[in-house]
Amino acid sequence: MKLNCDLGESFGAYQMGLDAEVMPLIDQANIACGFHAGDPTVLVNTLTLAKHHQVEIGAHPSYDDKQGFGRRSVNMAADELKHLLWYQIAAVDGVAKSLGLELSYVKPHGALYNDMMASPALLETLMQAVASYHKPLKLMLLATGSAKQHKQLAEHYKLELLFEAFADRRYKKDGSLTPRSQAGSVLDHQAALVQVQQLLHSGTVQSDTGQTVAIEADTLCVHGDNPAALALVQSIRQLLATT
Amino acid sequence: MKLNCDLGESFGAYQMGLDAEVMPLIDQANIACGFHAGDPTVLVNTLTLAKHHQVEIGAHPSYDDKQGFGRRSVNMAADELKHLLWYQIAAVDGVAKSLGLELSYVKPHGALYNDMMASPALLETLMQAVASYHKPLKLMLLATGSAKQHKQLAEHYKLELLFEAFADRRYKKDGSLTPRSQAGSVLDHQAALVQVQQLLHSGTVQSDTGQTVAIEADTLCVHGDNPAALALVQSIRQLLATT
Amino acid sequence: MKLNCDLGESFGAYQMGLDAEVMPLIDQANIACGFHAGDPTVLVNTLTLAKHHQVEIGAHPSYDDKQGFGRRSVNMAADELKHLLWYQIAAVDGVAKSLGLELSYVKPHGALYNDMMASPALLETLMQAVASYHKPLKLMLLATGSAKQHKQLAEHYKLELLFEAFADRRYKKDGSLTPRSQAGSVLDHQAALVQVQQLLHSGTVQSDTGQTVAIEADTLCVHGDNPAALALVQSIRQLLATT
Amino acid sequence: MKLNCDLGESFGAYQMGLDAEVMPLIDQANIACGFHAGDPTVLVNTLTLAKHHQVEIGAHPSYDDKQGFGRRSVNMAADELKHLLWYQIAAVDGVAKSLGLELSYVKPHGALYNDMMASPALLETLMQAVASYHKPLKLMLLATGSAKQHKQLAEHYKLELLFEAFADRRYKKDGSLTPRSQAGSVLDHQAALVQVQQLLHSGTVQSDTGQTVAIEADTLCVHGDNPAALALVQSIRQLLATT
Repeated sequence: MKLNCDLGESFGAYQMGLDAEVMPLIDQANIACGFHAGDPTVLVNTLTLAKHHQVEIGAHPSYDDKQGFGRRSVNMAADELKHLLWYQIAAVDGVAKSLGLELSYVKPHGALYNDMMASPALLETLMQAVASYHKPLKLMLLATGSAKQHKQLAEHYKLELLFEAFADRRYKKDGSLTPRSQAGSVLDHQAALVQVQQLLHSGTVQSDTGQTVAIEADTLCVHGDNPAALALVQSIRQLLATT
Repeated sequence: MKLNCDLGESFGAYQMGLDAEVMPLIDQANIACGFHAGDPTVLVNTLTLAKHHQVEIGAHPSYDDKQGFGRRSVNMAADELKHLLWYQIAAVDGVAKSLGLELSYVKPHGALYNDMMASPALLETLMQAVASYHKPLKLMLLATGSAKQHKQLAEHYKLELLFEAFADRRYKKDGSLTPRSQAGSVLDHQAALVQVQQLLHSGTVQSDTGQTVAIEADTLCVHGDNPAALALVQSIRQLLATT
Repeated sequence: MKLNCDLGESFGAYQMGLDAEVMPLIDQANIACGFHAGDPTVLVNTLTLAKHHQVEIGAHPSYDDKQGFGRRSVNMAADELKHLLWYQIAAVDGVAKSLGLELSYVKPHGALYNDMMASPALLETLMQAVASYHKPLKLMLLATGSAKQHKQLAEHYKLELLFEAFADRRYKKDGSLTPRSQAGSVLDHQAALVQVQQLLHSGTVQSDTGQTVAIEADTLCVHGDNPAALALVQSIRQLLATT
Repeated sequence: MKLNCDLGESFGAYQMGLDAEVMPLIDQANIACGFHAGDPTVLVNTLTLAKHHQVEIGAHPSYDDKQGFGRRSVNMAADELKHLLWYQIAAVDGVAKSLGLELSYVKPHGALYNDMMASPALLETLMQAVASYHKPLKLMLLATGSAKQHKQLAEHYKLELLFEAFADRRYKKDGSLTPRSQAGSVLDHQAALVQVQQLLHSGTVQSDTGQTVAIEADTLCVHGDNPAALALVQSIRQLLATT
């Protein structure tokens, strides 16, 4: 089980995230492309940090919405969205190569990620966009009860998928996440560790209504926004080391 | 002698330039990267057009200034500028490859181009930026009396240069262009054709003060902004065909 | 019956609309605020033109989306939207006053306008935003079969409404517009004149399915994007003069 | 002697400055207008905070450069700059009035402030811009050895000036600030308090080369970026209370 984290989300004079602290603890860095967060200099600095710690890198593209931090859906035509993704992936890809790094996957950000999981049409648009990029990149998405169908669709596009689970989010019985607006949707340190342990040992989580739900995940999404989040990553890393 | 032209400068609903008309007439398309003009969809459309007409493509990066169309100098640190260039080059490069095209050169836009020709330090920053991109790209700049020094500097960076001349701009005796604010700085159709003819036959132009100035150019910058500009490109193309 | 038109939609070097030609023909100018189109200099130039022709001015605010020309819905919180509207209205208001003009109304643009007409909750947010601005401004919206309810809601906010009809758009029997994607949704010159004449004489339009629909409009929306649109405005102006 | 501080510089999800902590300690809030920092929602929140603490408010306009936080000079035409300032002032003015506040002054930000103090032509452009806004606003600028000439020029425009001194910046003998790049240009807590005390008691500062320089200031610029800056504001506030 790998650990992935959103990074490179500072912007100009604005600092966001404890990138330097969390980078040594993770396996996969989802790197902001400059549309919800990040800028060319932040991108170079984040990639340089990833290189130093030999962390696998993914592009973390978003709707074009810096004020909303990519958390607001923008109603775009499928073609425009595909071009927007190519542009962002390409920017990270070429800068990464210039620093001696190879981009290996794409994980959509924020509202785009949520819309992708909610809309089969949008998921297919994203699959097409990533699959038609000029080199093979994996697409990271949420491991849900629809994982099998997602895999079948991806095979049609000759696209490899990376399924992720969330350490600190409460699941519903269909394998989707309870919305952040719902009480108890974000787990505390201890509950998150329990959920990770169960995931590692039995490939399942307990849903908000008490069911045991199978979750086949390749990677675990963690956060580096604040000291508490960082402490959780450290605990999960230890857990992984001793499992 | 090749013909190069700035293209892909539309933006969203805003149309700019007669791209479809001028593309069949040129050899090299300088493609806007989304910072002074262009957007991901305009980029894809412009590259598709270039592919159809088998036109060589270059990235046309700029200061980050869409309202000013990249015509206003922004006082940036050298490192930030290098990152800004990488980002823009990478975006065009990766999208082009996904459409089956190979990027071959970089031509800075507007104020960045002018600043590059006026400041040896900035020129060196741009050379470093292009030379350190992960694949070999040429840098297009103005053929002036300093071409020899520019070549020497470029050799230091193992960078190939493309020198361009202007069809429709009056030259000064040092091989630089008279500023647009000066009367007579932009040549009419007939005067431009005379200047091109002289360039082709003797590798020289007549300066604003009457001197014959040697100009060794690889490519001629033409414009596709309006019907008159387009008519000039057609005349120059005919001239080249019969020379 | 007044004529209103969207103006001030150029942006930097990008020209949009025949503002100088259409301004003398209209009564009310909906002026872009810099978020879907326009910039501070375009704003000053457009307001100056409105002043010269003694045209009433309205703010034409939008979602923050210049690439999409405000035609893409952005899923925003009600409070954020209210702040976004205040900001745009205030910018136009203060610049207008500095040129000796008084802002008198607000007409939402593009996707925001459509969303307002489709969502009662959003319409109420917009009413609250305009009503709570520090001086009385009217809100311009589509005259539909729901006009009476819209008036009642506006009274609650002590807000005056301006109802508009469209010269060149085909109506549905509920008084809403047929979507642009539907064949025949945009009327040609002659059909538009017929619709305007019927509106003026009997306060009705013929719907796409043949019904006679009552439309009580204060103002007619016209366009100045191109010569054909301009010719229609001239014809409508003549019709108004002889009615 | 009043205290002024830059506020409202958060942007979307990006936090900047301890606005809630510093607002109760100051007399004048320089409020970001959305071009180097801030957004419509941050603006409303900051103005609401200023109202609660009955702090005088000023617009803090900037070059259009969020990535550079307004710290990079943009080479603009005088007219464009005037329009840019009107737009930003108007946005803050109208939103403030809608919250029951009156804007009373303008303080340019960052590179625009520095350029204004370095270039008499730019200073005059800014004076014209503020003086021609539709209601009387003061212009805040640095108290230097040129204050008398600045006052004369301002009188020509019937513009009132507010002169500010810096608590924590080392002065040169001409009353300008030593550049931040120079060692010792930023004073520590104790040295800043000594400088403030001297300013209050004798209207002078000690320059970097040891001269006593007269500084007639109406207001003192303080910062609220971090806990150390905040502690200095608290100490200065105490000093003012006991003086």
